[in-house]
Amino acid sequence: MMQALFQEKLHVLNVGLASFAESIARAGGAALQIEWAPPAQGQQNVARALAQLVNLPSVEAANRTAFDLYQSAQPILRDIGIAREVLPDMGTRMILHGGPPIAWQNMCGPMKGAIIGAILYEGWAKDTAGAAALASSGDIAFEPCHHHTAVGPMAGAISPSMPVWMVVDTTHNRPSFSNFNEGLGKALRFGANGPDVINRLRWMGQTLAPTLRAGLEILGGIDLKPLMAQALHMGDEVHNRNVAASSLFLKRLIVALLKTRAPSADIAAAVDFVAGNDHFFLNLSMAACKAMLDAAHGVPDSSMVTAMARNGVEFGIRVSGTGERWFTAPAPIVDGLFFPGYTTADAAPDLGDSAITETAGVGGFAMAAAPAIVKFVGGAPQDAIDNTMAMTHITIGRNEAFTLPPMNFAGSPAGIDIRKVVDTGILPIINTGIAHREAGVGQIGAGITRAPLACFTQAVSALAEGVCGKR
Amino acid sequence: MMQALFQEKLHVLNVGLASFAESIARAGGAALQIEWAPPAQGQQNVARALAQLVNLPSVEAANRTAFDLYQSAQPILRDIGIAREVLPDMGTRMILHGGPPIAWQNMCGPMKGAIIGAILYEGWAKDTAGAAALASSGDIAFEPCHHHTAVGPMAGAISPSMPVWMVVDTTHNRPSFSNFNEGLGKALRFGANGPDVINRLRWMGQTLAPTLRAGLEILGGIDLKPLMAQALHMGDEVHNRNVAASSLFLKRLIVALLKTRAPSADIAAAVDFVAGNDHFFLNLSMAACKAMLDAAHGVPDSSMVTAMARNGVEFGIRVSGTGERWFTAPAPIVDGLFFPGYTTADAAPDLGDSAITETAGVGGFAMAAAPAIVKFVGGAPQDAIDNTMAMTHITIGRNEAFTLPPMNFAGSPAGIDIRKVVDTGILPIINTGIAHREAGVGQIGAGITRAPLACFTQAVSALAEGVCGKR
Repeated sequence: MMQALFQEKLHVLNVGLASFAESIARAGGAALQIEWAPPAQGQQNVARALAQLVNLPSVEAANRTAFDLYQSAQPILRDIGIAREVLPDMGTRMILHGGPPIAWQNMCGPMKGAIIGAILYEGWAKDTAGAAALASSGDIAFEPCHHHTAVGPMAGAISPSMPVWMVVDTTHNRPSFSNFNEGLGKALRFGANGPDVINRLRWMGQTLAPTLRAGLEILGGIDLKPLMAQALHMGDEVHNRNVAASSLFLKRLIVALLKTRAPSADIAAAVDFVAGNDHFFLNLSMAACKAMLDAAHGVPDSSMVTAMARNGVEFGIRVSGTGERWFTAPAPIVDGLFFPGYTTADAAPDLGDSAITETAGVGGFAMAAAPAIVKFVGGAPQDAIDNTMAMTHITIGRNEAFTLPPMNFAGSPAGIDIRKVVDTGILPIINTGIAHREAGVGQIGAGITRAPLACFTQAVSALAEGVCGKR
Repeated sequence: MMQALFQEKLHVLNVGLASFAESIARAGGAALQIEWAPPAQGQQNVARALAQLVNLPSVEAANRTAFDLYQSAQPILRDIGIAREVLPDMGTRMILHGGPPIAWQNMCGPMKGAIIGAILYEGWAKDTAGAAALASSGDIAFEPCHHHTAVGPMAGAISPSMPVWMVVDTTHNRPSFSNFNEGLGKALRFGANGPDVINRLRWMGQTLAPTLRAGLEILGGIDLKPLMAQALHMGDEVHNRNVAASSLFLKRLIVALLKTRAPSADIAAAVDFVAGNDHFFLNLSMAACKAMLDAAHGVPDSSMVTAMARNGVEFGIRVSGTGERWFTAPAPIVDGLFFPGYTTADAAPDLGDSAITETAGVGGFAMAAAPAIVKFVGGAPQDAIDNTMAMTHITIGRNEAFTLPPMNFAGSPAGIDIRKVVDTGILPIINTGIAHREAGVGQIGAGITRAPLACFTQAVSALAEGVCGKR
């Protein structure tokens, strides 16, 4: 046998460490290198925790329950309210922000810029220096949007008098909220806070919100999931590409707006604003995703991720079976396409609650449906398909409400399983915007990033402790 | 050599007639059948004509000229007019129809139904019997839309007082025209002519057209090619799927409409109507395609197709280098998806001017961009890509203004070359609606069909005669 082996030409497959294959190549042979890494990158305690959870009937059953809850959610846009009046536990001297909790002094530039802008918008200070002093005084509470059933893209700043979208999951009768989208470039969520930004926010609160609210009242609500599903058939992934969803949303709303008694100049201005912003629907997509995932949260033993969010310093995830705890790791840098004059060196790390879309199986997970997005985030159309395919390996199921035409109408991969992420090393992909690292500048690009493995290894350890500690 | 051959297992590739392969199979052997047919299906005179034209420098140069003219056209929607006032040579007792010329007594059911409806709309008769009598009396002239620089989907009926879209190719300063889209189901263009159909046409003429015209006046025009290009990035092929294009069009128009002095009830009704019809943009897509192709028409020696149109009895094509002549063959049946209760047996043969979109490199030719359309016309998403790929073999070039994301942003195959169609036997693919074969019923489905080869063999013979006769 051995003799026969050494008489034949060897076909070597080398799994894992590439240096073995390189030695064969140096000796004149040929070896095909297969990328593989041990689960949890060889951290033995995590690997043990993972081994405890894999195929555990209680976890499998909990995930089926959580996934069904996620899939049965029916988020309806019902109304528009003022943050301090409608957000649960919103204080009058409180500003919400994107991502997991973070103190003022640790915040990244664009988040500080957005909070300074929110303070100016509220009239709590008369200039940026005063606003920064107030922010660092400890007089204002800073809490994550997620702690108030809300989500906000990028800096995610929501201050008490801002208007918010009010979404209700009618299946489980739970609310979710998001702020309004201001457009691209110089916007509060990217850390810009000049007079143009503040004046636009004022107009949005005083004119846009009440006008759209009058339209919504006539419609009685907009069912967000079918609208998102239709947009997925029109080349959106409803995170970083929302051109179809925004158009469909405007089309629904305009018919109602024209039946309101709102001043026609206000209707014209509102329509102008919405029609001019292809990302307008993003915040609604996020609120809908938040509602779907909150429905799945809190199922004991479930390893399903119910939130991924970044504050520009840390990336955090929450898991259905581990309660309100955040598992965090340093926020990664985003690889993408930059606006002229900017590079990676100018970029803040990954930022905002918008990864709630990927958590819900759209965004980067549904990228196959949106080949044209590569012109915005980089790469080739085949990458978009490959990314969706890869995500099937780390998810619990497919969302049959979100079918992807280029995948022969298969449902989008959804319900990230922390066990599968740690086991395969395949990291959740996220399409996102890129903010300038300094306060006051704004958006400088868009691109693709990955959730850090360390969030998932911590979550696996914590879940294993909880699940197995009970026995 | 021969001995060695007969000792080995035979691997047989059989090209052309399948019966040879079948004989080998009956004898216990295996043969792979390769589909092939001689050019022009073996018609020797056509094959000779084709041989004269293939690689002929004058034809190649003429096609480059024609293709450049096609590609340089810039169709702008400029205005809305009344057919009798703006269509060239439109008579006051004339009704235009889809496809090549046809006499009343030879028309298919839905075309007769549409013409009866148009007569009722004009008030020339008081009931359908009177209208049919008038149509057969010879008192009314019937001419193709194409003879008046116009296009109309399906029956294509345009009568003197109907409103028409006025498009101008600003590069070559040429107009083109189309009628307005009424929506799906019971519509004049599908042969329906009940009071609801006629009343809707009246409202379209009296309210919709002047309202939209006021908006267009403020906009100064809408550049149709970029809008179509954007829709191709949003899952439309701008023939049978126009949901994105219609939304984008409405978004452009509504901003202007709200600045007009039109009565707000009229604006609301117009927006309601446009927002409720995902095919509204079809007629604009057609007028834009007509403009692009008219730019390419009349180049001596060019073998580029400048029109494909069907009247429900005959399928006709026109070629740039053969003047105003139509080359016709029996119109095929459309293979597709039928509305509940209907089958192929209920279907009229292929009908309408809408194949102008495929002639211009969109529709079936750009189907790769619109995988979701298979839910409307049948097949699987891969078929959509295969169809676009196949069309590259019979076209002169790629329209770089119409890029297709799933094909890595390659331009859509455009400029059908009659020589390549006859040489390869690959027939132009067409996405289209299906009308009931009887007058008065309406649309019963949608599907895919192919242009008949006989149109192209005749055109090749005629072009060869013209080109070689000159020498």
